[in-house]
Parts: sequence; C-alpha cells; structure tokens
Amino acid sequence: MEKNRKTGTYRYTVLPFQEDFAGRVSWFFLGNHLLRCASLHAGELGFGYERAKATGHAWVLSRLVVEMKEMPRTGDVYYVDTWVSRVYRQFTDRLYEIRGEDGRTFGYATSIWSLIDYRTRRPLDLQRDGDPLFLASVDGTRTVPVAPPGRVRVRTEEPRRTVHTYYSDIDINNHVNSIRYIEHILDLLPKETYATHDVRRIEMAFCNETYCGEDLSFYVAQRAPGAYDVEVRKTGGTPVVRASVVLAPSEAG
Amino acid sequence: MEKNRKTGTYRYTVLPFQEDFAGRVSWFFLGNHLLRCASLHAGELGFGYERAKATGHAWVLSRLVVEMKEMPRTGDVYYVDTWVSRVYRQFTDRLYEIRGEDGRTFGYATSIWSLIDYRTRRPLDLQRDGDPLFLASVDGTRTVPVAPPGRVRVRTEEPRRTVHTYYSDIDINNHVNSIRYIEHILDLLPKETYATHDVRRIEMAFCNETYCGEDLSFYVAQRAPGAYDVEVRKTGGTPVVRASVVLAPSEAG
Repeated sequence: MEKNRKTGTYRYTVLPFQEDFAGRVSWFFLGNHLLRCASLHAGELGFGYERAKATGHAWVLSRLVVEMKEMPRTGDVYYVDTWVSRVYRQFTDRLYEIRGEDGRTFGYATSIWSLIDYRTRRPLDLQRDGDPLFLASVDGTRTVPVAPPGRVRVRTEEPRRTVHTYYSDIDINNHVNSIRYIEHILDLLPKETYATHDVRRIEMAFCNETYCGEDLSFYVAQRAPGAYDVEVRKTGGTPVVRASVVLAPSEAG
Repeated sequence: MEKNRKTGTYRYTVLPFQEDFAGRVSWFFLGNHLLRCASLHAGELGFGYERAKATGHAWVLSRLVVEMKEMPRTGDVYYVDTWVSRVYRQFTDRLYEIRGEDGRTFGYATSIWSLIDYRTRRPLDLQRDGDPLFLASVDGTRTVPVAPPGRVRVRTEEPRRTVHTYYSDIDINNHVNSIRYIEHILDLLPKETYATHDVRRIEMAFCNETYCGEDLSFYVAQRAPGAYDVEVRKTGGTPVVRASVVLAPSEAG
C-alpha cells in the first residue's frame, strides 16, 4: 500500500520506569521515542543514518513541536505514525501522530530537519540534491493540527538556573541529548505544578550543540498564565535552545 | 519446567538513545531494566507490586551490586535472567545474569530486597510471614560469581558536588529514582575517564529515600586506582546512598 509505505508506525508501551510521579509517560521517553521513530523510518526507507553517513552527511534536528491532548499512562500502548510531509530548500518537515489502541489520538508532533555535510557543517539543498529515496518518500496529503512555532521572547538577563553538563548528558554524537533539554526546561517549574497541570505543548528550536563540561543557563519569561518561553544559552551568550511550554489544568486534577 | 518457572528471562535491545557517547548501554537503562525484570518476574509468579499493594506492603530495594565483564553496545541484544536465591529473616536475595545472543555473559548482578508494611514502614519477617508463592519461588541452586559488597568509607567532609532534585528525578513512588543516583555518581568523574575506561562494578546501598526539592551532596574517596567510594547525604547529614565504583581500562581503548 502506497500509504503504508510512506508512513512508519511504531508501537510502544509505557513501562513503570518511563513514567513521571503522576503516572504519565515522561517527556524524556516520549521525546526520545519520537526521534527514534524518525531514525527507524528513514532507515527502513533507505535514507537513514547509515546511508547519510556513507555519503558524508548527517541528519540534524532543527525544530520539534509536540502537542499532547492526553499523555499515555503506565501500561498504555501507544503507536507513533511518522512520515515526511514536505521538502523546501535545505529543510524537510517530518510529522507525527501519537495514537492509542482504541483509536483515540494522544497527540501530534511536527519536526524540521536538515542534512548537513559532516565536514563543512553546511546544509544540503534537499530539493535539488536530496537522495531520490528520500524525495520519493514525501507524503504531502496527511497533515496534523499543530500550529507552527511562535516567536520566543525572553528579555531577562537573570538566569533561572545554570546547569553543568556531564558524562550522562552526552549521546553518541558527543553532544547533549536533544531531549535532555526538555527535562531541564520542565524542571524550571516546581513539581507541584505537574500535580495539577499537564504539559499540552512544547516547542523546541535547536540552535547550537552543547558539549560535555559546558555550562547552560536557562532564562525564563512567562508569556501568559501557564505559558513560558525559555532561552538556553552557553556562558558567553551563544544560544543553544529556544523553547516554549504551555500547560493546562489536568482533567482529573 | 521447574527451572524455567523459577527463573525469568527478559530480552532487551540497546537502542541508539540508550547508549553513552562510546556506544555502551547507559547505566541508567541497564539499571532500570534490572529493576524492571525484578518487577516483571515477581508479578508473573504472583508476588509482585500488585499483590504486595493489595496486602498493604511494598518491595524495597536495599542493595544492588552489578559487575559487568563487557557492556552491551548499540544494537546488541541482551537477555536478563533473574531469580530469587535466598530468604533470610527480613531480607531476600535476587540474582541476575546478563547474557548475549551468542552465549557469552555480559555480567552479573545481586540485589537485596525487603518487604515493608506500607503503614508502619517496618519490614516483614519474610521467612516466617512471606507469601507462599514467594517462598516457593526460591532457587538456591544457581549462583553468580559476584563478591559481596564491601565497606564504604568516606572520611572527607567536603562534598565533590551538591545537586538539587527536580520533577524529572521523581518516580511514581514520589521519590528519586534509584538508578538516577548511579548517573550522578558516574558524573563525578570526567567524561574523558570513560573514553579509556569501562565501569566494571557498581555497589549501591540504599539507606533513605529522597523527595523532590531536597539537596543531595556527594562525598568521594579514592580507595585504589580506579576504585571510588561515594557517600550521598542530605543537607543535615542523613545518609541516602553508600556506593562504590570500580573502573578498568577498556580492552579496545
């Protein structure tokens, strides 16, 4: 089936150590599973990590927006559908739907990627020079109801928190795991907030990599009740991540 | 089969986001998978979390010793065998073997658990009052070549590091995830150490729970080259964890 070929579907179960204190799947696992599905799907269609590496390239995540109506909870099965929806110059959009077993939708996600030359660190023009297998995978017919990321504005010069980066933060690419930033960003709010509120939306714009031993400062601005903008900067000011988090009162809370 | 019935076997694959920068399975995942296997196995034999909860009890991890000859790496499949080997007064030993697909052994682990009354927080006498299904599961015939934990001695009063605990550190029991301490303990050494060395053995003695918002101080003493004792204490001195880590030069490094 044409549709099945272009959409990858992956099944997860929320295990006890993958949940937060309230029994919701933790954002660390949800986020890493989304990235994992991108990698699996690209690999299955022939334009994944191995293929990119063989031609001296690497896929780089530039933006990620996740919107959850409801979080899967301990023991829940969830399916991640993912497909490439668009290619435009140096960028490509990959979309996600996160579904439950009974046909309900937990949430959606959008992501923007580029393919860089490993040596020059410059992005390819994907429309012009993209792998034919990659270009053939694009399915523009299926969309998701996720608003594009907004403009993150943080004016304060006083960081809410500064963290040092350690061995455990570093992934196989020798930089801080992309999803680790989400953990730190959620940790800027007190745990009590999460007893009565769910995270509905997270926007992440990845600007620069962090290496082990660097310090990351988190600057926070409240945009509206339950809505926070966060900028993560290195010592010296280099931007690392621009993020935005929206919470809403829990249905049951 | 009697043997199969008493030993649970669980299969894992090291996924890309579960590895460290050198491609070894991260201790966070390895450790949490060992605890997960204990829970699965106890559940399958009828004396797990649900059963304990129904009778007003909870299983509590008191000690964990993990000895790895070799770490599974990205893409490797590993099997965890686990069984209850002994019951003595308020304690029970659960052992582990971590095996590869080709019959090789990655490592072994031992753990000590007690079953506490949820209301009084006091441990049961398992020999006298243990669940018959639990007592019937004991298999003393299979052992593992892991030396018992030694005595952790840390004399310094100057912590190497103090960490605050946040939302992301807290598990469903409302305290810091047991394996999170291992991450912090490994992060006491520079990442470069892990480029040339593998962690061969970790001993953990869990003394007290930590709740969200508490500060944890890490006191370190080098016992021998590549061998470290670590005490984790709350502000005020309450011991949380006593640990010991042994490293050895990597075969290939």
